[in-house]
Amino acid sequence: MRGKFITFEGPEGGGKSTHVKELAEQLRAEGRTVLMTREPGGTRLAELIRGLVRDEVDDPPVTRSEVLLFLAARAQVVSQVIKPALARGEWVLCDRFADSTFAYQGYGRGIDVKLLRQLNEFATEGLTPDLTILLDVPLETSRERLAERQAATATSADRIEQAGEMFHRRLREGFLELAKAEPERFVVIDSSGAREEVSKKVRDAVLSLEGR
Amino acid sequence: MRGKFITFEGPEGGGKSTHVKELAEQLRAEGRTVLMTREPGGTRLAELIRGLVRDEVDDPPVTRSEVLLFLAARAQVVSQVIKPALARGEWVLCDRFADSTFAYQGYGRGIDVKLLRQLNEFATEGLTPDLTILLDVPLETSRERLAERQAATATSADRIEQAGEMFHRRLREGFLELAKAEPERFVVIDSSGAREEVSKKVRDAVLSLEGR
Repeated sequence: MRGKFITFEGPEGGGKSTHVKELAEQLRAEGRTVLMTREPGGTRLAELIRGLVRDEVDDPPVTRSEVLLFLAARAQVVSQVIKPALARGEWVLCDRFADSTFAYQGYGRGIDVKLLRQLNEFATEGLTPDLTILLDVPLETSRERLAERQAATATSADRIEQAGEMFHRRLREGFLELAKAEPERFVVIDSSGAREEVSKKVRDAVLSLEGR
Repeated sequence: MRGKFITFEGPEGGGKSTHVKELAEQLRAEGRTVLMTREPGGTRLAELIRGLVRDEVDDPPVTRSEVLLFLAARAQVVSQVIKPALARGEWVLCDRFADSTFAYQGYGRGIDVKLLRQLNEFATEGLTPDLTILLDVPLETSRERLAERQAATATSADRIEQAGEMFHRRLREGFLELAKAEPERFVVIDSSGAREEVSKKVRDAVLSLEGR
């Protein structure tokens, strides 16, 4: 039996990595085999590409190059990691996937979303998540949490996190529009509440998937 | 006045880099400003991408990832180097460009060439060479010259050069088909002859372009 493919999406500070981990623990406690991955990343090549896209370098990618680098990383992790795991019947949880391309480079940077869908189709060979959990947070919360994380880890904002207010507004609205267009795949969860509460909502969304 | 964009294409061992340099010298001697570049490469980011594509690594790119990495490098060099130079009225000579994607990943690795043209259109924003010089060599010659170069520079064949005989056969035929489909852009030159002879043919092809 083919496994299930669940992606987590949303603006920075929505708690994606936390909830990916929590869900993985719950599924494992039930005896399921779970593969956690993230984008861009998940293979050695994809992590190298991640470095090119996210680091402050003296030759940062232009938008089209950024799109193609994200897609190159995706093609690699889909082919080498995600598809094989699904074929083995595992549950694959991915921190960001195609919808981040549509939100960031489409709604955020103004590339035609229909065109991005075609490019993404090439990179993924048509692989679509069974369920996408959009962890939505107001801009304010997103900003505060990001600042807290940077203070806690003594890191500074990367190139994408530094983009301006208007960009982050378009990004959030983009995610919500994507969810509205595909209600059968998306579950939108308000992630500004208490962690346990959000965690329960994630679990409920996944339970509905298990029945399918 | 917009400059001219000339690309050199063909199998390994056709003398592309030699003839790019010779043509650049001739054009400079005539007082023209010439920009030489190569693909993948030509910017710091693109050279880093080149490393990911060409080196033997423990996680070599799958074909789709390879395509997208080449296109990411192309999007960067087109936007940051080639278009600005053409806008300044310079002559841009490029060692490999879009036709290498169509030949290597299309004819060579079996990705639909029409699809590759769409992806390439995205990466280049529609930039097409004014003239493409295809330096064609028989498989035999290509192999011999490659072996000579490796002996002379004490290097070994990279991942792409190591691909098998059938791949290189499809590649050469692919380049010839591409040239046949666009006779107004391509000039095919048999590069198995003496270097001076080939050089003169390249010069003649460019002279015809200057008249346009």
